Amino acid sequence: MLSTMNKDSTISINSIVGGATAASGFVAAGVACGVRNSGSRDLGLLFSDRPCVTTAVFTRNIVKGAPLLVTKEAVEGGDARAVVVNSGNANAATGKRGLSDAREMQALAAEALGIGAGEVAVASTGVIGVYLPMDRISEGIERAGGKLGADGAPFADAILTTDTRTKEVAVRVEIGGRVVTIGGTAKGSGMIHPNMGTMLAFLTTDANVERECLQETLSSVTERTFNRVTVDGDTSPSDMAILMANCAAGGEPLTLDHPDYPAFAEAVETVARGLAKEIARDGEGATRLVEVVVEGAKDEPSAAALAKSVVGSSLVKAAVFGEDANWGRVLVAMGYAGVTFDPDEVELFFGPVKVFSGGEPVPHEEAEANAALARGEVGITVRMGEGDASATAWGCDLTYEYVEINGSYRT
Amino acid sequence: MLSTMNKDSTISINSIVGGATAASGFVAAGVACGVRNSGSRDLGLLFSDRPCVTTAVFTRNIVKGAPLLVTKEAVEGGDARAVVVNSGNANAATGKRGLSDAREMQALAAEALGIGAGEVAVASTGVIGVYLPMDRISEGIERAGGKLGADGAPFADAILTTDTRTKEVAVRVEIGGRVVTIGGTAKGSGMIHPNMGTMLAFLTTDANVERECLQETLSSVTERTFNRVTVDGDTSPSDMAILMANCAAGGEPLTLDHPDYPAFAEAVETVARGLAKEIARDGEGATRLVEVVVEGAKDEPSAAALAKSVVGSSLVKAAVFGEDANWGRVLVAMGYAGVTFDPDEVELFFGPVKVFSGGEPVPHEEAEANAALARGEVGITVRMGEGDASATAWGCDLTYEYVEINGSYRT
Repeated sequence: MLSTMNKDSTISINSIVGGATAASGFVAAGVACGVRNSGSRDLGLLFSDRPCVTTAVFTRNIVKGAPLLVTKEAVEGGDARAVVVNSGNANAATGKRGLSDAREMQALAAEALGIGAGEVAVASTGVIGVYLPMDRISEGIERAGGKLGADGAPFADAILTTDTRTKEVAVRVEIGGRVVTIGGTAKGSGMIHPNMGTMLAFLTTDANVERECLQETLSSVTERTFNRVTVDGDTSPSDMAILMANCAAGGEPLTLDHPDYPAFAEAVETVARGLAKEIARDGEGATRLVEVVVEGAKDEPSAAALAKSVVGSSLVKAAVFGEDANWGRVLVAMGYAGVTFDPDEVELFFGPVKVFSGGEPVPHEEAEANAALARGEVGITVRMGEGDASATAWGCDLTYEYVEINGSYRT
Repeated sequence: MLSTMNKDSTISINSIVGGATAASGFVAAGVACGVRNSGSRDLGLLFSDRPCVTTAVFTRNIVKGAPLLVTKEAVEGGDARAVVVNSGNANAATGKRGLSDAREMQALAAEALGIGAGEVAVASTGVIGVYLPMDRISEGIERAGGKLGADGAPFADAILTTDTRTKEVAVRVEIGGRVVTIGGTAKGSGMIHPNMGTMLAFLTTDANVERECLQETLSSVTERTFNRVTVDGDTSPSDMAILMANCAAGGEPLTLDHPDYPAFAEAVETVARGLAKEIARDGEGATRLVEVVVEGAKDEPSAAALAKSVVGSSLVKAAVFGEDANWGRVLVAMGYAGVTFDPDEVELFFGPVKVFSGGEPVPHEEAEANAALARGEVGITVRMGEGDASATAWGCDLTYEYVEINGSYRT
């Protein structure tokens, strides 16, 4: 159990085992129903045993999968307390039949859970432009409904596509004298990019949270976590993050001006950041997590744009894979980020090694800089002289496996 | 000798052998002086035996190599009639010493050619953040000065980095009753992206062209050719295109309102388009040229943004490499291009095979669509229902070799 102290040392956030079912009142299931050819689990249910306040954020891609439309209605219209997800097929670019299939998934899940259809969010991830095999989906939902339990692992497994491992993070934090839990389960892998490329994240909490407060929390946290991840620059039509609060821990409704709101927000951000880093680390073909920190920028959007440009550069990513401290590529990626800055005021570090400062190369041991890229977690730091803002972005290296995976995804 | 007829069938543009020395009065040389470890040619000179009107466009990257500053002065201040280029080292992120080295290159070339320093443009391409070996450069310039000739091949070879072949295009067209020649030599390979990533293009003509007309021609042609190429989304600090007109063919000065101006502009665009396609075809690790045509867009910038987004998508590029007609990725890449459109009004074609229309997949023979991706030149066409504008962009597939080249570029 790890304890994280924030800057003013008053918030204690404790990591615990688990994900979307760590908070009280949430159960889940995951089964294999044959959407994926591999025979892996591909159908998941997540369910709160009591009503929820729920909010969601969706992909900004103009092309949106049918499930997003259905989920948007469920989240805006009522208060979704369940999620049905399939992997292996994104049900996107599938027209009217796709929309009808998504609504049928919603209705089937509602029936299996004994709740209203409007209380079910729907998500699909996988190949685009192929109709869902509804007979298999239907059988899978019915079977999953009989397997709901506190163990979130089968659910975490069922939502994966080309991911190599499940992604679960959970924490506990004290709010208004009560211990509340916040957990999350996510999938990522390819097409991950700022603005939520093929990413699904299901966050839950047993805290009592007022709706507007929950919405604001998810929006701002998403901006600093999920939207700071890039794998390949592509974004997807299917992506969403959902945050469900079921009040099982009791207490007064949390609002934005509550004295303990910062603790709640920090806890949600800790979960989202943990999932975001796992998504980057498990990018398609990735062997390394790359974390780019930009400090001293004129404002946070500029810092974020610079960090995302560096972590998204194919040349930087290939250099990390090759353990080649070719720092010029970092500077160049900053140069096309769409942010104005003075290159002569930039300092670049690979790990602890300063490689560029004052417009000129800084003499350094090449082997030390290369060694900083040979770690499982690679840190690239940019210090600018423009202001006080900073931002972090996460990505991964570009490898032969990325090409292999995406040259034959459907076969 | 090929003859190209434009839409109104009044302009006849004839392709000829050669590149930057095809036009009268231009000579060039290329030697190996040891900047590149490989022993390949790495120092080139291009020279007009008489004064020129010259214009240039430069990278939009915030980080600019020292040679660009020197060349900008030469082009704006006087009329550059010579270019000195080295490959293997970009002389970028090299501070004051880099700028001093670029000026020394300029002075050395001027001395070797017997002209003023202000008449020499300077270009460098290669690794970033390493000082130029000026002793070798100096020796190379002197030797190249003694080897100037009409054969442009050694020059075309000397400017290459990870390119696998030289890129030369030349045409003849009749202007005001005189046959004029327009030729060009370019290099590309990695870091190629709209807005001129690591690309050098040297275009020459023996036409008599008024300055403003020449500038306008290069700007508009660049927008539709060099700025429509992407290899990996990275742009470079070193890139430029230069167009030099030396009037060796005589005639009245060409202006924008001259009745034969369209023929001249079309001829320059033919040369630039030919070089742009060669740059895309020879992208690092590429096995295929990909041409994306967007038709029926609301305006040309929208069409260009959509075409560039598709051709730049890592997932589309990997699918082309894998000969997997995963058309959903094309639609998705359009979706994050920053252009508003109705996906239900989009038609997608892989080669001649229609794969998507009216918001739904179009039943087709999978093998035929895959076969369209197995060609040396892959055509992807997007038809929209938004208007009459169209645009074409060029790129290449994403391969294992791209990763290999860029994982170990400096070693």
